Amino acid sequence: MKAKVEITLKSGVLDPQGKAIEGALAGLGFDEASGVRQGKVIEFNVDAPDEAAARARVEEMCKKLLANPVMENYAISISA
Amino acid sequence: MKAKVEITLKSGVLDPQGKAIEGALAGLGFDEASGVRQGKVIEFNVDAPDEAAARARVEEMCKKLLANPVMENYAISISA
Repeated sequence: MKAKVEITLKSGVLDPQGKAIEGALAGLGFDEASGVRQGKVIEFNVDAPDEAAARARVEEMCKKLLANPVMENYAISISA
Repeated sequence: MKAKVEITLKSGVLDPQGKAIEGALAGLGFDEASGVRQGKVIEFNVDAPDEAAARARVEEMCKKLLANPVMENYAISISA
């Protein structure tokens, strides 16, 4: 089963990388872009009997390693 | 309009960050995870008259700044 985890900074948290991208876009003439935020996406295969089991394990991985729940939100999607 | 760009390394490209995550997961007992790849997700607002126009501009941003087409794939999604 394939898992995809999207990790994004919570809305109150300062995102200097996003700000840098926004500045660079504006410098290239793309001034229609605003509120740029950068996050991470982690994709991998999970060996699990079914989708529910896979999701539970990936949820645990997020809590223990992949995301920092103080500053980050995460969204998990599982596909066959 | 909201744009989301997912940038992932092409499949032949070495991903040391993904390997590090895989090793850390295995060290925590999550040995069912394999083939870990890490990418980026960039989210922002685009000021555009319609979805097609927004997509065309974001496509251009990807080519000029956000992604390195030699090593990376990108996927754009636009929502209202």
